[in-house]
Amino acid sequence: MAKRIFGSTPKQDGFRMPGEFEPQEHVFMIWPERPDNWRNGAKPAQRTFAAVAEAIAKHTPVTMLVSNAQYANARARLPEHIRVVEMSSDDSWVRDCGPTFVINDKTHEIRGVDWEFNAWGGLVDGLYFPWANDNAAAQKICELQGIDSYHTEGFILEGGSIHVDGEGTLITTEMCLANPDSGRNFPAMSKDEIENTLKEYLNLEKVIWIKDGIDPAETNGHIDDVACYVRPGEVACIWTEDPENPFYEAAQAAYKTLSESVDAKGRKLKVHKLCLTKKPCRLVGADTIDTATGAIPREEGEIAIASYMNFLITNNAIILPQYGDENDALAVQQVQEMFPGYVIEPVRTEEVAFGGGNIHCITQQQPKV
Amino acid sequence: MAKRIFGSTPKQDGFRMPGEFEPQEHVFMIWPERPDNWRNGAKPAQRTFAAVAEAIAKHTPVTMLVSNAQYANARARLPEHIRVVEMSSDDSWVRDCGPTFVINDKTHEIRGVDWEFNAWGGLVDGLYFPWANDNAAAQKICELQGIDSYHTEGFILEGGSIHVDGEGTLITTEMCLANPDSGRNFPAMSKDEIENTLKEYLNLEKVIWIKDGIDPAETNGHIDDVACYVRPGEVACIWTEDPENPFYEAAQAAYKTLSESVDAKGRKLKVHKLCLTKKPCRLVGADTIDTATGAIPREEGEIAIASYMNFLITNNAIILPQYGDENDALAVQQVQEMFPGYVIEPVRTEEVAFGGGNIHCITQQQPKV
Repeated sequence: MAKRIFGSTPKQDGFRMPGEFEPQEHVFMIWPERPDNWRNGAKPAQRTFAAVAEAIAKHTPVTMLVSNAQYANARARLPEHIRVVEMSSDDSWVRDCGPTFVINDKTHEIRGVDWEFNAWGGLVDGLYFPWANDNAAAQKICELQGIDSYHTEGFILEGGSIHVDGEGTLITTEMCLANPDSGRNFPAMSKDEIENTLKEYLNLEKVIWIKDGIDPAETNGHIDDVACYVRPGEVACIWTEDPENPFYEAAQAAYKTLSESVDAKGRKLKVHKLCLTKKPCRLVGADTIDTATGAIPREEGEIAIASYMNFLITNNAIILPQYGDENDALAVQQVQEMFPGYVIEPVRTEEVAFGGGNIHCITQQQPKV
Repeated sequence: MAKRIFGSTPKQDGFRMPGEFEPQEHVFMIWPERPDNWRNGAKPAQRTFAAVAEAIAKHTPVTMLVSNAQYANARARLPEHIRVVEMSSDDSWVRDCGPTFVINDKTHEIRGVDWEFNAWGGLVDGLYFPWANDNAAAQKICELQGIDSYHTEGFILEGGSIHVDGEGTLITTEMCLANPDSGRNFPAMSKDEIENTLKEYLNLEKVIWIKDGIDPAETNGHIDDVACYVRPGEVACIWTEDPENPFYEAAQAAYKTLSESVDAKGRKLKVHKLCLTKKPCRLVGADTIDTATGAIPREEGEIAIASYMNFLITNNAIILPQYGDENDALAVQQVQEMFPGYVIEPVRTEEVAFGGGNIHCITQQQPKV
C-alpha cells in the first residue's frame, strides 16, 4: 500500500510541505523510555507525554508509537482514544526522525519525505549511538498510514530544523544546516546545494537563514526553539530585553534577521515577539538518569533548553509548553494574540525540556488532503 | 481510538462472528522468522508467506506484521502493495493469536474478541515458551485498526479451532476444546460452560462437536484442518477411502458426524468431500532447524500436517494449499465445485506445513461492515 518513489522529487511531482497552521489529519508521538536520557526511569516524562497527547487529541487524532517492552504500560497510561502502535525507536523525538509530509493540492494526495537521520550529528556530533531504529521510523510511519514516500538517501535533515509557510519559503539556522562541525551535510554539500535539496523536497523558492539557534550542544540550534511561521508572511520569534538571559544574543539576532527578511512572495515578514522564561529552566534529578556509554553526561542544575516557541500548531489549537516560570502566563497571552481565535492548550513540560526538547520536538503532524 | 469493552459480550451488544465467506476488509499475516521452527533460517518460509500474501492481495488488502529485526527484510521481499507494520511476535500463526472479529449488522460496527492465547496448551501442552508477544497480538491488531475489543481474560481459544456459519452455528473438535490433556479451559470449565462462552462471544445458538482433528500433538486437532463452512447449511470435510491414510479414521468420523448434524436453523448439513494428499507430506531439512530449549525436536521425514482444508476464503477467492502431491489438481477441482464462481488461487505451501500449519493458520481476516 505504500511505495518508495524513485527518480523524482516532490517539487517535480507537484507536492509541497504545508504550513503547520494548515489542516491536520493526525499527529504522531513516540513514547519515552530510555533511562539514560529521562530521569527516574522516564516515569515523569511518560506522564508528561500522556498529558501532551491528551491535549492534542482534543483537536487532532493521536497515534503513540511504543516499543514492545513498553506497550502494555503505555496502553494503560494513555486515554483510550489515543491509538497505541508498536514501533521500536532509539528515543522519542518524532519531529526529527519522523517523515515530513508533503501534499498535492490538485490530486489531494499525500506523500512522505524520509530524510536520513543520524541522531543530530552521527559519529561526529550525535547524541547517541546507534540510531538505526530512529532512522527507520519515517518509513514505518508512512507504511502504517499507507503513504508513499521519497527517501533522501545521504541527505540528513531533522524536522525540527525547518519551518515553512507552505507558500514557498522556509526558515532555518546556519548553526544546524551550514555548520562544518555539526556532523550533517555541510561542508560535503555547499550551502547552495543544501538549499536546492530543500527546495526540491519541500517545494520552495526561498530559504531564509538565521545564524544561530539556542542549543548548540544538542540539536545544533534547531529553528523550532527560535522562530516559527504563524501564517504566510508572519513569523513568531523569541525575544528578551534582558542581556543576562543566556539566549539574549541569539534572540536579538534572529529577530533582526527575520525583521529584515522578504519571503518568496516578496512580502516583508511581520515578526511577533514571544518571551523567554524569566529564569533558566534547570535540570533536577540528574542522579536518577542512568549512565550509558555514548550518552551525554548530565549535571544537576544544568540549563535545560526551555523555549515557549517549541509549541505545536494543530487544527486551530496551540499546544504550548509551560515551565512553572514567571513568564508562563505572558507566553500564553502573546501566543493567543498572534493566533486569535485559536484554542491555547498550556501543558507543563519541564520533563520534556530535561530530556532535550519540547512539544514541537515530540510531535509530527500528518496534514489533511 | 480503540477501547476495551467490559461488562458485556458481543451477543449482548448485538455483534456476531460472520462466516469467512462474507465480505472482508483486510487480511493480517505475521512474518515467519524463528529458526527453531522454520528450516533454513526461515528463508524458504518467508518466500512462501510472500507468495500467499500476494495471492490474497489480489482480492483483499494485506498487512504483514513483522518484528523490528526483520522489518527491512520483509519490506524488501514483499510487493509494495502489501502493508508492512512492526509487531513483535513469538511465531507466525495469526489465526490463533490474532483477534476474532465480530460485526453488528444494524450499526455497521466492528469489534474484536481478544481470546487468551497460551501457545496451544501453555505449560501443560504448549508448543513454545514464552508466548507473551503472541498473547498481546490481538489487542495490538485491534489498536492498529482503531477497533474496540473484548478480552476473554482466562478463557483460552485459538481462531483455528472454530469455524462458524455466521447464522448461529459453530463447528469445533473435542480433541481441542474438551480435552483434559490439552492445557486449555477443560476440565476447569465444563463443556457446557465452554459452549456458553463461545455462544456469548460469537453470538451462537448451537455448537457442533466433531470428536477428533488430525494433529493431536500440535494444535490438538484444530477444526481448520478437518472441516469448514462453505456457506450457511453447507460444510466441507476432509475425505479419504484409503485405510492406509494416517487421517482415514478422523476423516471418516468427522464426515459421519457432520452428515448427521442439524444446525441452529434446523438445517441438515450438506457435506462436501475434500480429498487428502495421496502421500503424506514429510519434513525435509530437519537438520537446518535450530535446537532450542522448549521447542519440539524435529525429525527428518516426520509427517507434516498437510491438509487441503486449511485454505483461506477471502472475497470470493480461495487461497488453497498445494503440496506437490498427486491430489493437488483434484483438490483444486473439488474446491472449485463447492465454491462455484470463486477464483481459486493455488499456492505451494509445504514450507508452511513444515512449520506446523497452513494458509488458514497464517491468516486472519477483518470482515467488512
